Amino acid sequence: MHSPGSSVSGYVLLLLVQIVFIIVFGFFTDYSKDLLPKNATVSAAMEEAHEEQPLPKYPHFQDIHVMIFIGFGFLMTFLKRYGFSASGLNLLVAALAIQWAIIMRGCYEMEDGKIPLSLDNLIGADIAAAAVLISMGALLGRTTPMQLLVMAIIEIAIFAANEFLQIELMRIADVGGSITVHAFGAYFGLAVSFMLRPNKENAKTGPMECSSYSSDITAMIGTIFLWIFWPSFNSALVDGAEQERAIINTYLSLAGATVTTFVFSALVAHEKKFDMVHVQNSTLAGGVAVGSICNLLIHPFGAIMVGVIAGVISVLGYRFLTPAMLSSLRISDTCGVNNLHGMPALLSAVFSAIYASLATTETYGNTLTTIFPAMKQNSTLSEEDMHEMVIGGYGRSAAKQGAFQLFAILLTVVIAIVGGLFTGLVLRHRFFGGILKPPEHFLDDIWWSVEPPESGTVAIQNVMDTPRVAHPTVRLASSSQA
Amino acid sequence: MHSPGSSVSGYVLLLLVQIVFIIVFGFFTDYSKDLLPKNATVSAAMEEAHEEQPLPKYPHFQDIHVMIFIGFGFLMTFLKRYGFSASGLNLLVAALAIQWAIIMRGCYEMEDGKIPLSLDNLIGADIAAAAVLISMGALLGRTTPMQLLVMAIIEIAIFAANEFLQIELMRIADVGGSITVHAFGAYFGLAVSFMLRPNKENAKTGPMECSSYSSDITAMIGTIFLWIFWPSFNSALVDGAEQERAIINTYLSLAGATVTTFVFSALVAHEKKFDMVHVQNSTLAGGVAVGSICNLLIHPFGAIMVGVIAGVISVLGYRFLTPAMLSSLRISDTCGVNNLHGMPALLSAVFSAIYASLATTETYGNTLTTIFPAMKQNSTLSEEDMHEMVIGGYGRSAAKQGAFQLFAILLTVVIAIVGGLFTGLVLRHRFFGGILKPPEHFLDDIWWSVEPPESGTVAIQNVMDTPRVAHPTVRLASSSQA
Amino acid sequence: MHSPGSSVSGYVLLLLVQIVFIIVFGFFTDYSKDLLPKNATVSAAMEEAHEEQPLPKYPHFQDIHVMIFIGFGFLMTFLKRYGFSASGLNLLVAALAIQWAIIMRGCYEMEDGKIPLSLDNLIGADIAAAAVLISMGALLGRTTPMQLLVMAIIEIAIFAANEFLQIELMRIADVGGSITVHAFGAYFGLAVSFMLRPNKENAKTGPMECSSYSSDITAMIGTIFLWIFWPSFNSALVDGAEQERAIINTYLSLAGATVTTFVFSALVAHEKKFDMVHVQNSTLAGGVAVGSICNLLIHPFGAIMVGVIAGVISVLGYRFLTPAMLSSLRISDTCGVNNLHGMPALLSAVFSAIYASLATTETYGNTLTTIFPAMKQNSTLSEEDMHEMVIGGYGRSAAKQGAFQLFAILLTVVIAIVGGLFTGLVLRHRFFGGILKPPEHFLDDIWWSVEPPESGTVAIQNVMDTPRVAHPTVRLASSSQA
Repeated sequence: MHSPGSSVSGYVLLLLVQIVFIIVFGFFTDYSKDLLPKNATVSAAMEEAHEEQPLPKYPHFQDIHVMIFIGFGFLMTFLKRYGFSASGLNLLVAALAIQWAIIMRGCYEMEDGKIPLSLDNLIGADIAAAAVLISMGALLGRTTPMQLLVMAIIEIAIFAANEFLQIELMRIADVGGSITVHAFGAYFGLAVSFMLRPNKENAKTGPMECSSYSSDITAMIGTIFLWIFWPSFNSALVDGAEQERAIINTYLSLAGATVTTFVFSALVAHEKKFDMVHVQNSTLAGGVAVGSICNLLIHPFGAIMVGVIAGVISVLGYRFLTPAMLSSLRISDTCGVNNLHGMPALLSAVFSAIYASLATTETYGNTLTTIFPAMKQNSTLSEEDMHEMVIGGYGRSAAKQGAFQLFAILLTVVIAIVGGLFTGLVLRHRFFGGILKPPEHFLDDIWWSVEPPESGTVAIQNVMDTPRVAHPTVRLASSSQA
Repeated sequence: MHSPGSSVSGYVLLLLVQIVFIIVFGFFTDYSKDLLPKNATVSAAMEEAHEEQPLPKYPHFQDIHVMIFIGFGFLMTFLKRYGFSASGLNLLVAALAIQWAIIMRGCYEMEDGKIPLSLDNLIGADIAAAAVLISMGALLGRTTPMQLLVMAIIEIAIFAANEFLQIELMRIADVGGSITVHAFGAYFGLAVSFMLRPNKENAKTGPMECSSYSSDITAMIGTIFLWIFWPSFNSALVDGAEQERAIINTYLSLAGATVTTFVFSALVAHEKKFDMVHVQNSTLAGGVAVGSICNLLIHPFGAIMVGVIAGVISVLGYRFLTPAMLSSLRISDTCGVNNLHGMPALLSAVFSAIYASLATTETYGNTLTTIFPAMKQNSTLSEEDMHEMVIGGYGRSAAKQGAFQLFAILLTVVIAIVGGLFTGLVLRHRFFGGILKPPEHFLDDIWWSVEPPESGTVAIQNVMDTPRVAHPTVRLASSSQA
Repeated sequence: MHSPGSSVSGYVLLLLVQIVFIIVFGFFTDYSKDLLPKNATVSAAMEEAHEEQPLPKYPHFQDIHVMIFIGFGFLMTFLKRYGFSASGLNLLVAALAIQWAIIMRGCYEMEDGKIPLSLDNLIGADIAAAAVLISMGALLGRTTPMQLLVMAIIEIAIFAANEFLQIELMRIADVGGSITVHAFGAYFGLAVSFMLRPNKENAKTGPMECSSYSSDITAMIGTIFLWIFWPSFNSALVDGAEQERAIINTYLSLAGATVTTFVFSALVAHEKKFDMVHVQNSTLAGGVAVGSICNLLIHPFGAIMVGVIAGVISVLGYRFLTPAMLSSLRISDTCGVNNLHGMPALLSAVFSAIYASLATTETYGNTLTTIFPAMKQNSTLSEEDMHEMVIGGYGRSAAKQGAFQLFAILLTVVIAIVGGLFTGLVLRHRFFGGILKPPEHFLDDIWWSVEPPESGTVAIQNVMDTPRVAHPTVRLASSSQA
């Protein structure tokens, strides 16, 4: 048996978790009332009304579903010998996370002791899973499968609490989830990565931390599907004109980010050639950077501008910041989530503060208080509004809303980092696999029944020839041979 | 010329089939009346009404379309040297099957001597093609292209008859097609496989019946797209609350199946590692197992439970049953369709009988008779109802509906097996290629113009070096050399 | 530094273009009025109306979006060492083209000095990008990235003008864009290819102009997504019954083309085997050939017939015409766009002329003038109609509409060829890279930071070992060694 992470006890624990989920679903969830037949007369009318129009959000949901399972899954296949884990563990982690997210997010919207399920819960669960998969990107190839699953459990719980805090209590504007999903997921993952950092003699790139020609192409499947459906991600939670603006702005921002990504990828490279790492990731930074503001009146100019800036920041981050974080702080970031999700999300939050502080009734009309609900005047509150708890109360000025946007990103990053550090501490426990040593990094062969490679990849052969149940010192020896 | 299956006469036959299709479409089909302009006044009003709302089922259709062509096509690319055939023949077989399915299914809904075409027919044709592609999965790599096409022609005809029998005449509940599509396709294919079984000395795994590292990753493209869009497959034929329940239940069932697939994949494996075969297939068993019951009030608890059980059964099937079927009965099942489609579909049918027998007006309200139309009381029948033929008549009790559900799966499996045996008998004819010998199994090079592999795959070289137009004994000799 | 095309100055120019785009977007675009809040009362009503129904075209848009970025991008990955460029430059060129297309197409629909943006503009921009990507297919592997970008800039400007001319001024029927997109893109690209033809001693297939086993499978990802979503492409611009007919006709035409593609692929091949080039491309010819007529009353018979013919023409084109064009005229057509887009589009135009000339009020009812607006009688023109400029005026007879359809394709091909020749002349300038020599064709390594191939591909090694900044004669020498 290789390590505790792949032991029978680990899988039995996972099975127990799934059984607990079943029980919780049994006791605490049900379909929302709209989806339950009631007495004959009411039901007839309801059914009919329901049948007339199809589920309006379903296409949006399916686009997001593709992003979570194909997008994230294939983007992470860029490593040359970690594609089974990338696509497979992405599926496993997400399948666990969506169940747990329905429960955890549902805690804040229970009715009569039950979480009422509808398509909205599935959309919310998929979005929550995105945060976990972003964190997984920071750690990719350096953890046991069990560690990823434990991280998913803890992270979803903290994610749901923070999301409720920011959106429902603090009433911040973040329709594309740049603050609550991207920044949260990225800094949570980086904090875990910091806790799982190798000791100094292991802190170098292993022989398997590279892509192959074909793995870089399968990764592009992930990139392009994320790119295509990002407008759906950013616009899924709004309707009408807000939704259409969110689509247009995200589309333009991504286009702008893509052009600058290629330009700067070549400009910062040694031989002025394009780098697949940048193309696979920084082209998407435009989607993150416009996330918190995509429904606002940023106009086409603002949308492209934000994308262009995000592309530049992201490429520079890959080129200079990621290596620096590794060498100075020993924080690995396998997929560079700080560059794709972290920094562009900070940018989005800052822009959201600026745009919020400039929002007026002149420009937004009566949609102002739809977009920024806490800006409702106390005199105009409805019965329902009065029962809602809003931190700081209603009647916020534009400037105050802007300050809240900044406070939201600050608070989110702090919660993510503290949560990530705590999670990392838990994951260091031997039972979950401890800190993996470099020869076990980025290698499907450790976790999957897989034929040894056919030819030419001497590095893998060396790693694979060493005994699996190696004493730590033996492991290091094999590492230095490779 | 290698074999009659790839001879000019075979392709000319296929061309003739296509020409016959054109003629049949010319004489016996037209757009449905809604899609034909009529006189000016009527048309104006109709057009306007039509234009106001978009085609509500079109997104569902496109999701299913992706499943049929990308999902099945890429899932079957897992073999290391059969990817051209998997993706290419999947496209060819499906393209033929959908045309033929429109005709065969249309026979049961003709109006004035014409089959009225609308989007519904395309959805139905795609679903029918799924049954053929499931059967193809059982046979993958062991047939000539011509045999697959002939099978498609026969299978679609029987499929359409059985579907009409179960849904329209017996009025069973099967919105996700577990009974009419998955069980039918799986057992039809296995029966064909039985008829095409090799003689004893050839009944061993050929050198090419394995995946490569990269083919296992391209197969995941198919798996994940099937996984993502399965809620659309199961919910395409219902509306309103039923549709939303079908989506939620399928989503949850798949998530549950995925977790248990990983757990049991590792637990039953020698080194406690994950097996790509299980991940590519058993994760989907949850979608099949919930198919016949996904619109019922199984509640989230029931949905996850069904998925969890399906995942376990499917993995155990791959691990123990498929090898046993091969060694004891010489029934090959290349993709393990019995584990992904067959057994989970049986499970779904049993659950559908249980849930149907428990259905009451108290829980279902007046949607009871929408879901189980034969449970309408004779006193409440509409004019239209009275003209419909229902086997056993209206006024079914819940228990009787449950019995019908069981009878439906039994009848479907019997029809599929008898139909498959007959089809296999036809396919054994020399003209369609007879029984392929192992050296010709799983090898694109036999059917496609393809560069010989670059290096390292000695097995292929051996196979390819032997003369193609070999005498049977020579073939066997080359096989034993490999 | 290899060539001016990959020089710093080239990337700086691209950055400047992006900055110019930002400025133009800032001054000349805004959201359409529907998407801007106005005064409180109006806005409230509008918002509500808008919110009630989701964006009806959004699923269609996303299908097309997948075609442009995944479909074209992955179809072009068929070359064994040009997959980074295929998927990456497809993304870059399209990202630039869609921004520019919004501006160029918007010139013809400005209101108060601004281009009003809505989802329709994004759909139009994606369709315009398709024309550029088709042209890119003709040139694939033989240009610098900079040349593709310059071509995109020029081509979009001419495309937008021609599209406006054909659709708005000449009022031709072309809902699937066969005339304005496919024929235009193909002949524009071929004209550029002619201008960039190598001199005689270089006019032979380079060592890298071939696929590998795995690249042919990734290309199938592109093919199949294009195949799946082609009904969305052809039906995006129409509504109601027209839309549903367009979907049905395209679906049937593709199915027919697929079957004949396989038949003729085998029949024309040396060993009667299928050829991946045909399967990847000619199966799609049915979508092009039905493009201009897919909303007409061509009936299922007509739809399949057109597809069947298109499949045959396309395969024969690949087999005989493309090699002949290369040897006689030295016109390279890497992806065979003449066979997939060019000739099937000509076929579509001819059929559109025939069907238009047969259109009567008896068959089309009052939808006749929706489909062919110039056939409105002068007596029935609305106020709005009278302000529209229509070349030749209203009151066209069916025969005259047919003649216009033929004139439209003629004019489009002439404009495309002249535009392409001019563009090719520009691209021959040294600053954009001049005419690439064969050793630099089809090779990602020239443009991308990429690990050298692991083993077995001696041809690449030879190419890569030669100095990059080689004197022309040295280049040829290295080419002839390979």
